Amino acid sequence: MTSETTSSTDALPRIAPQRGMPEQVRIYEVGPRDGLQAEAVRVPTAVKAEFVRRLVEAGLTTIEVTSFVSPRWIPQLDDAHEVLTAVGRLDGIRLPVLVPNERGLERALAAGAREIAVFASATESFAKNNLGRDMAGVLAMFEPVVRRARSAGLPVRGYVSMCFGDPWEGDVEPRKVASVARGLLDMGCTSLSLGDTIGTGTPGHVLELLDTVRGAGIPLERTALHFHDTYGQALANVHAALTAGVTEFDSSAGGIGGCPYARSATGNLATEDLVWMLRGLGIHTGVDLNALAATSRWMAHHLGRPSPSRVVTALA
Amino acid sequence: MTSETTSSTDALPRIAPQRGMPEQVRIYEVGPRDGLQAEAVRVPTAVKAEFVRRLVEAGLTTIEVTSFVSPRWIPQLDDAHEVLTAVGRLDGIRLPVLVPNERGLERALAAGAREIAVFASATESFAKNNLGRDMAGVLAMFEPVVRRARSAGLPVRGYVSMCFGDPWEGDVEPRKVASVARGLLDMGCTSLSLGDTIGTGTPGHVLELLDTVRGAGIPLERTALHFHDTYGQALANVHAALTAGVTEFDSSAGGIGGCPYARSATGNLATEDLVWMLRGLGIHTGVDLNALAATSRWMAHHLGRPSPSRVVTALA
Repeated sequence: MTSETTSSTDALPRIAPQRGMPEQVRIYEVGPRDGLQAEAVRVPTAVKAEFVRRLVEAGLTTIEVTSFVSPRWIPQLDDAHEVLTAVGRLDGIRLPVLVPNERGLERALAAGAREIAVFASATESFAKNNLGRDMAGVLAMFEPVVRRARSAGLPVRGYVSMCFGDPWEGDVEPRKVASVARGLLDMGCTSLSLGDTIGTGTPGHVLELLDTVRGAGIPLERTALHFHDTYGQALANVHAALTAGVTEFDSSAGGIGGCPYARSATGNLATEDLVWMLRGLGIHTGVDLNALAATSRWMAHHLGRPSPSRVVTALA
Repeated sequence: MTSETTSSTDALPRIAPQRGMPEQVRIYEVGPRDGLQAEAVRVPTAVKAEFVRRLVEAGLTTIEVTSFVSPRWIPQLDDAHEVLTAVGRLDGIRLPVLVPNERGLERALAAGAREIAVFASATESFAKNNLGRDMAGVLAMFEPVVRRARSAGLPVRGYVSMCFGDPWEGDVEPRKVASVARGLLDMGCTSLSLGDTIGTGTPGHVLELLDTVRGAGIPLERTALHFHDTYGQALANVHAALTAGVTEFDSSAGGIGGCPYARSATGNLATEDLVWMLRGLGIHTGVDLNALAATSRWMAHHLGRPSPSRVVTALA
C-alpha cells in the first residue's frame, strides 16, 4: 500500500470540453481589494503592490487593486493611493479600483486610476445598514460618480451585492436584482457584477436570476457573477452560469477575504479552484496555475494562516 | 454597519427548481465506513453505532456501516461485527457493508449483513498497489464473493475507484472504467458507484464518462457517483451529473474521511453541502439539515477536529 501521489499540477486531468460552453472566460481577480479588505491582518503597502505584480505574472489580466473608501471604514486599505501608484501602469492589464463616492473618485483619479467600480446592493436592508440610506439614495449617490468617471473616459463596473440572499431580509427576488442592475446600466455603468454575498444560492437560483436579468434586457456579455463559497456552492454555481453563457467570473487568489458585513461569510471563490475547473473544461483563462498557487502560498504566509483554497492545499 | 446574519438553516434559500433535473436523489451515506476508515482517531464502537442511529434520525436511508476488511489493513474498523450487531435492523433502512474477499463476506453474513459492497478500481496500478494483483485477478477474486452474496439474496454494489485519475497513472480512459463496470455487472453486482478517488475530475470529465458508460450499455439508474473535494470540484461534478440523469450520489456526513492511499486526498464530498445544493434545486432527499449538521458537529468532537464541511461551518 505505497503511495506516490502526484502533488503538483502534474495531477491536472486532461482536457474534456463540454458542449455549449464558452471557449474563453475572463477572470476578474478581486484578491487585492475584496480579499485583503476582509482579512484581519493589515498587509504592508509594498506586499500589496508585489501581490498585484505576481498576479499579473501568473497570467491574470484584470485585477481590482484597492478601494478608495474612507480609512475609517476599512483601515486595511488605507494606502490605496500608494498601492495604485506603486503598481503603476502595466501594458494590457486592467487595474480597476473601487470608489464609494465622489470624494473616492477624486482620490482614485489623482492616483492614476483608469477604471473604477461602484458597489450597490439588491436590498434595502444592506443599503441602509451599510451606506445609511435607502436604495434610491444609494443610486442617487452613485449617479454623479459614474457620470464624472465616464466623462473622464473610464469604464465603470457596477456591483450588485446580495443578489441571492441577504442576512437581514433572507430571500431576494430576482426582479429586484434586475431593477438595480438596470439602474446602474442606465446611469452609465459599462459592466455589472452580480454577487451572492452570503453564499446561499444554488445553481437553480443562478439560472433563474440569469433568466430574469436577460428578460429585463440586460446583456449577459456585460454581466459577471461573483460567488462566495460559504456553503460550498460557488463552483457548482459557476458551472450552471457557464451553461447559460456567462463568460466573466470574480474570484480571489487563494480564496482570501469574504464579506466583512456578514458574520458567517467565508472567503470568495478561490481563483485556483475556478481555474482548475475551467481548465478541465478546456476553457482558456491564460492563468499559470503553479505560479498562481505559489503566489497564494506567499500571501498566506503574510496573512499568517493557510489558504482556504482546496487546489492550493492539494498542490502544496 | 451592524450584522445580524442568520446562522441556522433560516439562511436556506427558497427553492428554485431547474429544468431537466431529477425530482428525487438517493444519498448513499459513506461516513461511518469510508469516512471513519480514513481518520487518524479510532472511534469507540458505541460511538460508531450511535453515529449510524443519528444519521438515520436525520433522514438518511442508505448508510454504509463498516468494512469487514482485515483489522491489519484498517485498524479503525476492527470492530465491524460489533458495530453492525449494535446497530441491528432498522425498518426501511439499507445498511450495506464493504467486504474485501470471501473471508470478509463470511464475517459480514455472520454479523447479519443484508447488503454488501465490493471495491474494484479502474486502473492496474491501484489494483497492484493495494490488492497485490492485476485487474483480472481482482475481478476473479470478487467473482465468488458476488456469486455467494447474490445466492444469499443480498444486493451487491460494485465500487470502481480511480475513474478520473490515478496517483500512479494520471489520466484514466473512460473506456477502462466502462470495462470494469461491465465486468462487475456481468458478475452479478446490482448497482455501481464510480469514484473520483483523487478528486481531479471536472464536469466535462463527468459528462464524458457518463456518455461512455451509457454507450457501453450500463444503465445510469444503477450507477451512483462518488466525488472527493480535494480540488473543490465535487459539487460542480454532481451538478453536471444531475443534468445527465444520475440520481444517486455518495457523500460523507461532515465531509469526514478521504482516500487513505492518496496522500493529497482530502475528504469526501460533505453530505450537508450536497443536501444544500439539492434542496435549492427542489430535489427531495428526505434529510433534515439541522439534525445532520448537529450529528457532524458531535462526530467532529469525537474526532478532535472541526468538520471540513462548508455548510456545517456556516451553520455553526
